[in-house]
Amino acid sequence: MAGIKTLETHRCFGGVQGFHEHDSAQIGLPMRFGVFVPPQAEQGPRPVLFCLAGLTCNEQTFAIKAGAQQHAAAHGLILVTPDTSPRATGVAEADAHWDFGHGAGFYLDATQPPYAKHWRMESWLMGELPGVLAEHFPVRNDRVGVLGHSMGGHGALTLALRHPGRFQSVSAFAPICAPTEVPWGHKAFGGYLGDDRATWARHDAVKLIEAGARAPSLLVDQGLDDNFLAQQLAPDRLEAACTAAGQPLTLRRHAGYDHGYFFIQSFVAEHIAHHARALNA
Amino acid sequence: MAGIKTLETHRCFGGVQGFHEHDSAQIGLPMRFGVFVPPQAEQGPRPVLFCLAGLTCNEQTFAIKAGAQQHAAAHGLILVTPDTSPRATGVAEADAHWDFGHGAGFYLDATQPPYAKHWRMESWLMGELPGVLAEHFPVRNDRVGVLGHSMGGHGALTLALRHPGRFQSVSAFAPICAPTEVPWGHKAFGGYLGDDRATWARHDAVKLIEAGARAPSLLVDQGLDDNFLAQQLAPDRLEAACTAAGQPLTLRRHAGYDHGYFFIQSFVAEHIAHHARALNA
Repeated sequence: MAGIKTLETHRCFGGVQGFHEHDSAQIGLPMRFGVFVPPQAEQGPRPVLFCLAGLTCNEQTFAIKAGAQQHAAAHGLILVTPDTSPRATGVAEADAHWDFGHGAGFYLDATQPPYAKHWRMESWLMGELPGVLAEHFPVRNDRVGVLGHSMGGHGALTLALRHPGRFQSVSAFAPICAPTEVPWGHKAFGGYLGDDRATWARHDAVKLIEAGARAPSLLVDQGLDDNFLAQQLAPDRLEAACTAAGQPLTLRRHAGYDHGYFFIQSFVAEHIAHHARALNA
Repeated sequence: MAGIKTLETHRCFGGVQGFHEHDSAQIGLPMRFGVFVPPQAEQGPRPVLFCLAGLTCNEQTFAIKAGAQQHAAAHGLILVTPDTSPRATGVAEADAHWDFGHGAGFYLDATQPPYAKHWRMESWLMGELPGVLAEHFPVRNDRVGVLGHSMGGHGALTLALRHPGRFQSVSAFAPICAPTEVPWGHKAFGGYLGDDRATWARHDAVKLIEAGARAPSLLVDQGLDDNFLAQQLAPDRLEAACTAAGQPLTLRRHAGYDHGYFFIQSFVAEHIAHHARALNA
């Protein structure tokens, strides 16, 4: 049984919000994640909702700022908030940028040196972490949803599209919808995946949908006063791709809202309800 | 009209969460505060709830971590989150302690050098800030509540007891109930008020109630796994003083909860409802 180190626990809405660390074989370093266990878990295993955070964030950000626990407690969902990249890798360049390297794993497995060794976020999240969770928490690994914000929205969409059947529900706040077409994506994919853009397309939600990948019905919220909307997010591209492909999507545009957690907390209740409808069905 | 500088605004639950700064005459330095304006303010002035934070916190802490805006939006209350002390005072000793000096104003006016010049939190909060708010926000200064956490719970209780009639509602999370009897209070009151313990008693909720001061019915929540409960908080002393004096108090003890914001967010809905009952009456 793989060990975990519990760093903190806090009673919250009748459940427990914890922060934990384990030695990840995939990443080759200790990795941290938060877990909120709702009160219903005392009666038996509960569905799991992975909540993937954005650039510069860590395993605590969504847990502290999103206000999701109250709704997870109401619906009986376990929330898992993974860190957004390997840490303390010794790769100096990984600290030189706020949008690349540490805190910016982009939820994929890097293929290029010096990143390929530790930046294996997709293998950690899809291959290793579910087993760790199953050993230590009352999770139902057959009832799993994924939600993400910004870079984490990209993660939620692409992991669901790349792994059909693994997630029964998907949603995103202000996701990077078309990373192959925007500066954040160019920087990340160039660094992690190299110059062959055919490899980039496999981690781009729009390109995946255009290529025939499908996911459960998507709920996406986007603020219209989001500073990153015009240059980095491209929800119009997602909408067009879903319409053309017949991929179900509910895209809601919200006047006045920006990119941050005051936006997320305003609509998180509806996201948790969206996941609960599928996961508790 | 006294100017304010708006540092940030974020749409949130149909209202606006802002962070602002003004040049405080009482403090003699710029002071920051957060204001959440609920959607109902578009129809006219709304009651105000001051939310006073604890040691090491600033004007953003409660606004980011407590999850109170959703409930303020539901009840039509304006939330004001003041910073917890003067900042950048040039007093070197004020940075030497996490529980004294910067981030630890204790909501009183200091009388002792070098603190007396800038540490005038009571005069700022009670005398100056309400006027600034009235000039720039749709506040009803005749309908005002106060809520606080830890050091801010001490602030909520003592400001309400020291200024009868100014607050129509009062509540606290894990307040420092009897600062003259605990280490945090000894350190703060000794530094800010000097050796004459008669002056200390005027800023101690238990001693004020014992001396005949009264406040609106108090709601106090306390976690029983709070690391500071035994040594610093003394809710039993508050309960005994209220019982002896006939001061209405609802003190709720919560098994398993600790001192932090995962505790606060679990019960903040009931606090906002407590204030709304009085302020919207």
